Amino acid sequence: MGSVKVYGPPMSTAVSRVLACLLEKEVEFQLLPINLSKGQHKSPDFLKLQPFGQVPAFQDDSTTLFESRAICRYICDKFPAQGNKSLMGSGQVGRALVDQWVEAEAQSFNPPSSALIFQLVFAPSMRLKTDPAAIRESEAKLKKVLDVYDRRLGECRFLAGDEFSLADLSHLPNAHYLVTATDRGHILTSRKNVGRWWEEISTRPSWKKVAEMRKAPLA
Amino acid sequence: MGSVKVYGPPMSTAVSRVLACLLEKEVEFQLLPINLSKGQHKSPDFLKLQPFGQVPAFQDDSTTLFESRAICRYICDKFPAQGNKSLMGSGQVGRALVDQWVEAEAQSFNPPSSALIFQLVFAPSMRLKTDPAAIRESEAKLKKVLDVYDRRLGECRFLAGDEFSLADLSHLPNAHYLVTATDRGHILTSRKNVGRWWEEISTRPSWKKVAEMRKAPLA
Repeated sequence: MGSVKVYGPPMSTAVSRVLACLLEKEVEFQLLPINLSKGQHKSPDFLKLQPFGQVPAFQDDSTTLFESRAICRYICDKFPAQGNKSLMGSGQVGRALVDQWVEAEAQSFNPPSSALIFQLVFAPSMRLKTDPAAIRESEAKLKKVLDVYDRRLGECRFLAGDEFSLADLSHLPNAHYLVTATDRGHILTSRKNVGRWWEEISTRPSWKKVAEMRKAPLA
Repeated sequence: MGSVKVYGPPMSTAVSRVLACLLEKEVEFQLLPINLSKGQHKSPDFLKLQPFGQVPAFQDDSTTLFESRAICRYICDKFPAQGNKSLMGSGQVGRALVDQWVEAEAQSFNPPSSALIFQLVFAPSMRLKTDPAAIRESEAKLKKVLDVYDRRLGECRFLAGDEFSLADLSHLPNAHYLVTATDRGHILTSRKNVGRWWEEISTRPSWKKVAEMRKAPLA
């Protein structure tokens, strides 16, 4: 069996979510660059791997998958005895708690944080006009979500309990952009428990390695 | 062990997703009404079950969960030998394919279909002004997503393969509103394979029962 393949640039938040998971699980992988500015994600060959024309796509022998959170769950299930063994929690209830907070990330944290990153990071870099109303609205929504997180993280060291899990990992890509590439990092760092949690999860060796990969220029 | 508890009105798309899963799995449940128009989902007691103040919340003995898709996965894992046994697919790859299409529903189908339902069903019922630009934008996005689905459903009977799964079930709540409560149902029904799939999944006894429950007035 060869190593698994990830298609997409590490600067993509969804790609870096999968990379962080592979590094936590100590699974060997090949990263195959997909140049978004050249439209490679819309090429007929890539659409066979990812029919929506989005990154990442993932291959493990004859299995092809898309959707970063589904890929991460597959990696955890496929390599249970390797690397970080508590990434999907422990037992049925433990797994459900991880799953619940991965969904909270996908449904509540991701929409406003992605919108903010688009407005504050990507739109300026693409010389698009930013939308002040969208920035205000996303910031207000994100603050409400993080108020809930701050209470939760006052009760538990990590979102799903006492162990670092996919629930925490899944937040790293967007949180990293907010803290390192915008002037709104304080939305996270000024909240007592969220700030403590961010410091702890973002300094893990796996994420530090992904952060280095994200600095590389696009292929 | 008592039956599991679901808190929330069946007219909520997320609540009805969980109800459809429980009925497919033949799991006994109690449905506890939460009156959204009276703000019961923001009461201190409810926030202990669901800290974001959204429906549904779910209880199984001492386990409390939120996020409908995480609750559905938990129900499948907790009751593997009961009711529909292929709802989460079969084997690691089968489960990953179900997961992938549940994520496609959550990330690609849900945002534009929820926005359309809000504009075309809920806004008029709340006497809010509708936003024609938001309707046009959501409709265009949804059509693109369903073009991908139509190709997929030309290759497979159901989204994750030959069996009905949580991937299909997860689309029922929003698709039902679009087809039965708006004039945009043709976005689904006019597409050859999506139309065939919608007809097949929406006439399952489990969903017909949920559709009946959705007709009941709010508590």
